Amino acid sequence: MKFIVVGLGNFGASLAEKLTEQGNEVIGIDREMSKVTALKDTISHTICLDATDKATVADLPLQNTDVVVVCIGGNSGTNVIVSALFKNLGVKRLISRSADSLHEHILNAIGVSEIAKPEVESAERWAKKLCLKGLVNSFDLNPHHSVIEIKSPSTFIGQTVQQIGFRENYNILILTIIKPAAKKSYFGLNSEEYITGIPKPDTVIDTNDILVLYGNTSDLQKIITKK
Amino acid sequence: MKFIVVGLGNFGASLAEKLTEQGNEVIGIDREMSKVTALKDTISHTICLDATDKATVADLPLQNTDVVVVCIGGNSGTNVIVSALFKNLGVKRLISRSADSLHEHILNAIGVSEIAKPEVESAERWAKKLCLKGLVNSFDLNPHHSVIEIKSPSTFIGQTVQQIGFRENYNILILTIIKPAAKKSYFGLNSEEYITGIPKPDTVIDTNDILVLYGNTSDLQKIITKK
Repeated sequence: MKFIVVGLGNFGASLAEKLTEQGNEVIGIDREMSKVTALKDTISHTICLDATDKATVADLPLQNTDVVVVCIGGNSGTNVIVSALFKNLGVKRLISRSADSLHEHILNAIGVSEIAKPEVESAERWAKKLCLKGLVNSFDLNPHHSVIEIKSPSTFIGQTVQQIGFRENYNILILTIIKPAAKKSYFGLNSEEYITGIPKPDTVIDTNDILVLYGNTSDLQKIITKK
Repeated sequence: MKFIVVGLGNFGASLAEKLTEQGNEVIGIDREMSKVTALKDTISHTICLDATDKATVADLPLQNTDVVVVCIGGNSGTNVIVSALFKNLGVKRLISRSADSLHEHILNAIGVSEIAKPEVESAERWAKKLCLKGLVNSFDLNPHHSVIEIKSPSTFIGQTVQQIGFRENYNILILTIIKPAAKKSYFGLNSEEYITGIPKPDTVIDTNDILVLYGNTSDLQKIITKK
């Protein structure tokens, strides 16, 4: 596929590099020569130009481009102007980065196809990740469905996944088992956790195993309170 | 769990809000009073303070905090100083945001537990999304296991969950099916989504269904490229 990435800051540069890596043809644009020079070997094509200049932008090979991504992050005003310019030039698919909700409303009004919110998207993932790690934690897929992490109820220990019958008896899916593993570090004995993948029917639940379960909140509640 | 989030920009504010939403106790810190005031209703506790001031930081309830996340993004120097300060005060788990690879090296040298790279992480997901047709969303549990949302491959449509045999044939778990539902809004016809819960063996995959799948990255890759 053919991409134009406008603005080569942290987000734009990473995106343009990954897309190039994956075998796409990418034109990376920035008005700072230093950024363009630094990225010339890792992005298929780099051009130093001011994307608010209509005449210059109109000269880009827009007809042959599948997706334009406006990654300008520092200045919402510039981002809006550049997004509107590309929209007016009739690009096939236009993605734009938004800084906050007001900015997002404007981009929606312009008719941008999709909106990228790097910080918000990442924050959501980190919040989920941070909450999954603890002893009894959960993250919600919607108000009624969650993924939770619990210490195995003692009655499950020594039994196989099939014997317990998570799906049949509890209407719950077991996603994985986290096993604590001791690891020697320079500072002494540290405990580390590792994830075992999808449990097989004959996988036996061990002492100290942490179960990652998915299901309806009320079904999960029953298993949390199980001894 | 108890969190301290330092720096309430786009990333820090979103993270602190999500963590609060999920029922955690969160102290959000910023040196700008306007940010602190704007977020006082959506974060459990907000404090206006300069996190580079050792005496003030030492007064925070660090002993009772599970995780400190340094989200300062604009100024790498400040981020490094604040990260080093929290590290010296012996917090249990320290996560810090990095702007580029040099910054990351320094944070590693300080001994930060984990490094968040919002723009790079998001760029990776967008690159994946733009290149893989049908991939709607993904969330990584660890480097080898992910939860992904994909448009149903056309060959699955009309078949039951049992006939497809996600577990047996693909070593993948199907967590849920998201169904798009039309909903009238003030601006015309908007599409809304709803989650159906754990699919039963006799659930039939429908046109436009979005499948939420969990498994090993390489197993998921096979199903993503399926027609």
